[in-house]
Amino acid sequence: MAIDQDPPRRRFLKAGVAAGAALGAGSVAHAATNTPLKQLKQPVDPMLMVEPFFGEHQAGIVTPQQSHTYVAALDLTTDKRDDVIGLLKTWTDAAARMSRGDTAKPLPADDKAAPDSGDILGLGAAGLTITFGFGPGLFTHEGRDRYGLEKRRPAALVDLPRFNGDQLLPQKTGGDILIQACANDAQVAFHAVRQLARMGYGIVAMRWGQAGFLSGPRGQTPRNLMGFKDGTNNPSTAQPALMNQFVWANAPDAPWMNGGTYTVVRRIRITLEHWDTMERGFQEQVMGREKYSGAPIGKKNEFDALDLDAADKDGNQVIPENSHVRLSNQATNNGAQILRRSYSYNDGTDFYIERWPPWRQETEYDAGLIFVAHQSDPRTGFIPINDRLAKFDMMNQFTTHVGSAVFACPPGVRPGSFIGAGLFEA
Amino acid sequence: MAIDQDPPRRRFLKAGVAAGAALGAGSVAHAATNTPLKQLKQPVDPMLMVEPFFGEHQAGIVTPQQSHTYVAALDLTTDKRDDVIGLLKTWTDAAARMSRGDTAKPLPADDKAAPDSGDILGLGAAGLTITFGFGPGLFTHEGRDRYGLEKRRPAALVDLPRFNGDQLLPQKTGGDILIQACANDAQVAFHAVRQLARMGYGIVAMRWGQAGFLSGPRGQTPRNLMGFKDGTNNPSTAQPALMNQFVWANAPDAPWMNGGTYTVVRRIRITLEHWDTMERGFQEQVMGREKYSGAPIGKKNEFDALDLDAADKDGNQVIPENSHVRLSNQATNNGAQILRRSYSYNDGTDFYIERWPPWRQETEYDAGLIFVAHQSDPRTGFIPINDRLAKFDMMNQFTTHVGSAVFACPPGVRPGSFIGAGLFEA
Repeated sequence: MAIDQDPPRRRFLKAGVAAGAALGAGSVAHAATNTPLKQLKQPVDPMLMVEPFFGEHQAGIVTPQQSHTYVAALDLTTDKRDDVIGLLKTWTDAAARMSRGDTAKPLPADDKAAPDSGDILGLGAAGLTITFGFGPGLFTHEGRDRYGLEKRRPAALVDLPRFNGDQLLPQKTGGDILIQACANDAQVAFHAVRQLARMGYGIVAMRWGQAGFLSGPRGQTPRNLMGFKDGTNNPSTAQPALMNQFVWANAPDAPWMNGGTYTVVRRIRITLEHWDTMERGFQEQVMGREKYSGAPIGKKNEFDALDLDAADKDGNQVIPENSHVRLSNQATNNGAQILRRSYSYNDGTDFYIERWPPWRQETEYDAGLIFVAHQSDPRTGFIPINDRLAKFDMMNQFTTHVGSAVFACPPGVRPGSFIGAGLFEA
Repeated sequence: MAIDQDPPRRRFLKAGVAAGAALGAGSVAHAATNTPLKQLKQPVDPMLMVEPFFGEHQAGIVTPQQSHTYVAALDLTTDKRDDVIGLLKTWTDAAARMSRGDTAKPLPADDKAAPDSGDILGLGAAGLTITFGFGPGLFTHEGRDRYGLEKRRPAALVDLPRFNGDQLLPQKTGGDILIQACANDAQVAFHAVRQLARMGYGIVAMRWGQAGFLSGPRGQTPRNLMGFKDGTNNPSTAQPALMNQFVWANAPDAPWMNGGTYTVVRRIRITLEHWDTMERGFQEQVMGREKYSGAPIGKKNEFDALDLDAADKDGNQVIPENSHVRLSNQATNNGAQILRRSYSYNDGTDFYIERWPPWRQETEYDAGLIFVAHQSDPRTGFIPINDRLAKFDMMNQFTTHVGSAVFACPPGVRPGSFIGAGLFEA
C-alpha cells in the first residue's frame, strides 16, 4: 500500500487507525493487510478491513459480504468514446484509492471545491469494494452504436425478458453503468458511489441508487427480513471450480469478459405486514425450509442436503411442489446455479393498497430485498430460474419485483490499466 | 437480567453471544451488563451491548448514539382509552424484552403465527433502545377528546408553527405516537418497530417510518453527509445539571412528564450534488466551522470556544452573520440549548428539479438528515432556534424540511409499570 503525501489525508487515516485500535482489540496488526476476515485467526475491527481493488477478478463478487451496500445505475449522456474511456480511467484511480480508505482524489490545500465530500474522513476502509458493470446501453443506445462497441456486445448480455408478475418502475430499472459499493459501514459505501457519480458529471447521470444492509452473526448465513436464512444453497466461493463453472464468464464470443461475470439486480419489495401474520408452518412451506434452524423441511441442520424426493407417509412431497427452495434448486434447473449476494433494503414507508384481504389502502413498509446474482451467463442462470419462480413460487404472493437491471461486470484490473480496458482495446 | 425459559429463544441468544465472542476479543465479560461503552475500559462488541430499558428516564435520549435508527410515527385508530392503555402495557413488556436481545414475545412451540418475525434470531441486543412519545393527537383528535386526556396535555406540547421554507409532506409529518428504535445494527433497529407496530394492529396504523444511520469513529463527533462534524456544541450528557436545565421536562402543569422530554423530528433533505460542488471555503462560511478539524473558523481545535465577537483586520465578523453555528448558538438564542441526536438518512434516488442553475430536472439523492432534538420545552428550544435558522441560515439553499413532528416523551418506566402510566393514572 502506497503512502500518500497529503498531510491532512494522512492525519485522518492515522486518526482512524487509532480510533479502531481503541475499539477492537487485536485488530491493529491486520489494519493494512488484504486478508479477508475468514482467513484471520485474530478478530479484526470491520471498520479497518481492507479489500484489494486490483486483481484477476473485481472485488465485491466473491468477497464475503460486508454489512452495507449502495448500488447505483448511471446512464451515459455523452456521444464520445474518449469521454467514456477517460471516465473509466478516472474511476479506476479513485476506486483504488477509496478501497484502501483514502479520499477519491487528493485533497487540495486551498479552500477550493474539494474532489471529495469528506464525510469518510477519520473512518477506515471498512472493507470497501467497488464493482463496475456495463449495461446493454453501453453497446447500443436507442438503436445507435454510440461508441463503436455494438459488435463487442457479449451474447450473454441479453435484455432480460418480462417475467410473470413484473411490476417494474422505470426509475428503478435499467442503466448503462453499474456501480456497486459494499462496505462494513453505510456512509463508506454511499460515499464511494457519490464521489464516482460526481466525477462523471456531464458524462453520466444517475438513473437509480439504492442503499442496502445485511445483518448476521459473522460467518453464519444471515437472515433476511422474512426471518429466514438467505444464501444457504449458494455455490461455495471457496471452490474455484464451482466459481469457474457458474460465476466467471468465459464465452469465446467476448474474451474481454473472461474472468468477469454477469450480474442481475432486482429490487424486490416484500409485504412484510402480510408475511408477519402467516403461520410459521405456512412460511416454512413457502420457503421449503425450517425457519429457525434453516434446515430443509424434515432435516435437522441448515446444511443438510435438500432431498427433493422425500415423501411423507401419505406419499406427499416433504418439500412442497411450489416452494422456493425446490423451484430455485439446481436439480430442477438443469444444474444451473447462480451466486446470490443480496442485501435487504429499507426505504421507510409509502402508500399502497394491501395485497391481501380486505385490500385496504394504507401506509406500509417500502422494504425488501436488493437481489444481486452473479453468473457466467444469465441465459442459463437467472433467466430460466426466475422464469419458473415468477410463475410458480408460493412466495410471489408476498413479493413484487419493482426494479431490474443486468450488467456485464468485466474482469479485475491490473495496476496501470483501467476497468473494462479489454473492451476498448480492440 | 431474567433468563427466559423458552428453549429456542435461549438457544439463539447463546448462539449470538458465541458469535460475538469470536468477533470481538474482550467483549464477553460485558455482554450482559448495562454499562454504556464510554464507561468501559475494555472494548466491547457493539452487537453485544445491552442498554437498560427501565430507569428514571427513557433510553435513547441521553444514551450515546448507536449506529442505526428506525423512527416511526403511528396514528391511533381506536376510540377506546382502554385500548391505548392495553397497548402501552403490551409495548412496555415487548420493549423490555427486545432491549435485552430477546424476541418481542416468547416464541410458541407450535407452527402457528409467531409473535416475532424472527429476523434478529442469532443477533445480540446491539445496544437497542426504544423510545416512546405522544403526539398532540393523543390529547385532541379533530377537535375531539377521544381518551379524556385533553386537560392533561402539557402546554409545552405545542403544535409546531409553519417555518419559513417548510415543504412538509403529509406522509412524512405528524403522528399520534413516536417509536424510535436505535441500535448498532440496521435490522435490530427496524425489527423493534416492526414488532411493536404489528402488536398495535387495529389500534394504531403506521403513519411514517424512516431508517437512519450514523458513521463515526466511536467516541468522536461523527461527520454527517455534508462532511462536517455534527453535534460538537451539544450540551454535555455527562453533566446532569445541563440535562435538567435543557432536556428533562419539569413544568408544573404536567407533572406526569417530569423526567421526560419533548422531541422534535424533522426530515431534512440535503441537495448533496449541489453542496459537493461548492468551494470548501464557502462550505465553511455556511457552517461557521472548519471542515476538517471541526474548529470554529479561526480556531485550531474542534472544542475551542466559539468566539462570536471575533473580527478580522478589516473589522468583519470571523464567524459569518448568517452561518449555521452563529444562528443556532445559545448566545444568540437567549441561552437556549437543545440536545441534538440526529441520524443521516439515505432513501436512494428520486426525481427532482435542481435547486441550482440551470435547474435541470433529474434524478437526485433522496438523502439527508433525520434531525432529532430533545428539550425541556420546544417553546424556548427548537421553535425560536429554528425560526431564526429558517429565515437566515445560509445552509437553507442546500436543505429542505420535508417532514416534521413533535412528541412528549414521558419519563422512564419502573419494572411493573408501563410507559406513560403517569398520564393515565389521574
